[in-house]
Amino acid sequence: MLPEIVKWDNNNLFILDQRKIPMEISYLKCSNYQEVASAIEKMAIRGAPAIGIAAAYGVALASLQGRDSSKKALERLSRTRPTAVNLFWALDRMEKVLDHSEEMCLFRDLLAEADHIYKEDIEINMAIGQHGATLVQGRSLIMTHCNAGALATGGYGTALGVIRKLQEDHGNVKVYACETRPVLQGSRLTSWELQQDGIDVTVICDNMAALVMKLNYVEAVIVGADRVASNGDVANKVGTYGLAVLASFHKIPFLVASPISTFDMTLETGRDIPIEERDGNEIRIIGHNRVIPDLIRVYNPAFDVTPAHLISAIITEKGCIFKPDSGKISTFLKSLKKE
Amino acid sequence: MLPEIVKWDNNNLFILDQRKIPMEISYLKCSNYQEVASAIEKMAIRGAPAIGIAAAYGVALASLQGRDSSKKALERLSRTRPTAVNLFWALDRMEKVLDHSEEMCLFRDLLAEADHIYKEDIEINMAIGQHGATLVQGRSLIMTHCNAGALATGGYGTALGVIRKLQEDHGNVKVYACETRPVLQGSRLTSWELQQDGIDVTVICDNMAALVMKLNYVEAVIVGADRVASNGDVANKVGTYGLAVLASFHKIPFLVASPISTFDMTLETGRDIPIEERDGNEIRIIGHNRVIPDLIRVYNPAFDVTPAHLISAIITEKGCIFKPDSGKISTFLKSLKKE
Repeated sequence: MLPEIVKWDNNNLFILDQRKIPMEISYLKCSNYQEVASAIEKMAIRGAPAIGIAAAYGVALASLQGRDSSKKALERLSRTRPTAVNLFWALDRMEKVLDHSEEMCLFRDLLAEADHIYKEDIEINMAIGQHGATLVQGRSLIMTHCNAGALATGGYGTALGVIRKLQEDHGNVKVYACETRPVLQGSRLTSWELQQDGIDVTVICDNMAALVMKLNYVEAVIVGADRVASNGDVANKVGTYGLAVLASFHKIPFLVASPISTFDMTLETGRDIPIEERDGNEIRIIGHNRVIPDLIRVYNPAFDVTPAHLISAIITEKGCIFKPDSGKISTFLKSLKKE
Repeated sequence: MLPEIVKWDNNNLFILDQRKIPMEISYLKCSNYQEVASAIEKMAIRGAPAIGIAAAYGVALASLQGRDSSKKALERLSRTRPTAVNLFWALDRMEKVLDHSEEMCLFRDLLAEADHIYKEDIEINMAIGQHGATLVQGRSLIMTHCNAGALATGGYGTALGVIRKLQEDHGNVKVYACETRPVLQGSRLTSWELQQDGIDVTVICDNMAALVMKLNYVEAVIVGADRVASNGDVANKVGTYGLAVLASFHKIPFLVASPISTFDMTLETGRDIPIEERDGNEIRIIGHNRVIPDLIRVYNPAFDVTPAHLISAIITEKGCIFKPDSGKISTFLKSLKKE
């Protein structure tokens, strides 16, 4: 049984510290929204849906100090990380509750909404898993990047949700997890999650992906997403774009598993997605081990954008969008509104 | 001034311990061939030409215990690392001296041959640098992988030799060095070498290469080689093949800088090149920092093979072979014999 990504206890938010997994399982106690914001910035919690959930609880936590504090929390939390749109989507939901809730019910309503965002995300991921497993059936050799798993979401995972369902339905799934430098979400989180669930997983360095594809060890690449533009371009953990190019070269389907909350219809293309650049010491220092001195310059973009034409399908909780483009995405989302 | 990769002093071989660079500059004292073999296996010294040089000195060192010891050294050193052909090429040269030298001149002759292999390699690299810089002129944004530099060779470097000459001739060279997991030769060695020589260098994680190419930060990719098959397929540090695919996708020239001693005309294609698989703990443990537990399975191939059709040119000390194939390589090598 995997640990919960966040726990609410006695008016504190406890955040599973993912920087220490798998060598240590521990929670970070957050007593105010500032500590929640800091935990998101430092990537103690990460993954697009997970940071939305943590931020939602941060707003609820702030309301213990009153409505104004919650308003400040909305502003502070929105400045933690720029790329994943789920953060802003979750804060928008919290803001609506904040604006419409009466003073005496404010904390109760905000906490209920955060709980709702959390629980709803698990159901969404199980639906993504179902659609994805149907799409991928007949293939059992899967490559994934970063961690789009239970730890990146409310639970079950997006890309790893598809892998979990595939394993439940057909068994014999074999996963190659790219280690995902610099923060190593693939080697530390994905491998641990899958291994805990009894799924066959092998970690490789990111630069081995091309060789592993050439050796025919991969029948599908499945990744998550931090933001999907209206034309189907996808921002995700840096390295995703390279994998999409390599998958295309090796004629391997490249699949993005992503809830509808990750779509940002205000952006025409992926060029408009803000890409976070993080501290170079993430590259220079690994754990407590300094690899290179400060005077060596590094470039540390946290995300890249994969153009829609390299994506075979986007798997959502409401079904798949094949060879995504503006027209197909618009039609797909309109059909949902009619439901 | 960069430190020498090996120093002969008072009948001991001192090997620059590249595992500790750049945080510490220290030499490993080898008093016998077994210690030289171990240093090569543990990658205290690495790089195709450099391990050939170290092995040559290992044979000379062994001859202090007589001819039989040198014969055993040839056998032991040939089992250190399988992929780089320069090792076997250097040992073949030492074996010829061993077979033809008289007993009382044996040590002197073997040491002279090792010195010759060492010094000759620097001249070869300067010639490679000249041919490469002529080829690449007009381009100043270069990406490289691993370390094909002074530290990987007798001095000056192959791929980094081209970069050095380009900088000497035209200035303004800007290098992106892929960090090269798991052993981090790019972030630790290449960045340090270039920074010491005043060349602008930025380290990126391997999975950022595609993004950096897409951003138009790269006008040529230049790498070294561990073995070139007779059809032009190239074995080099794992990750090279992926970079070649990415360069092709982004229409960026992909260049291999390699001395003629790296060609193995006994092999028809790259499929015949033995690929070393190394200990998984190279991935699991970084420095003294354990990232993932032993129970997580890893795959750790040290090299991959780039097919000739992805290579724009191979730069040798005698000139360039454009769009290499069996015919062109055979013609090129025959023309040299006529010289």
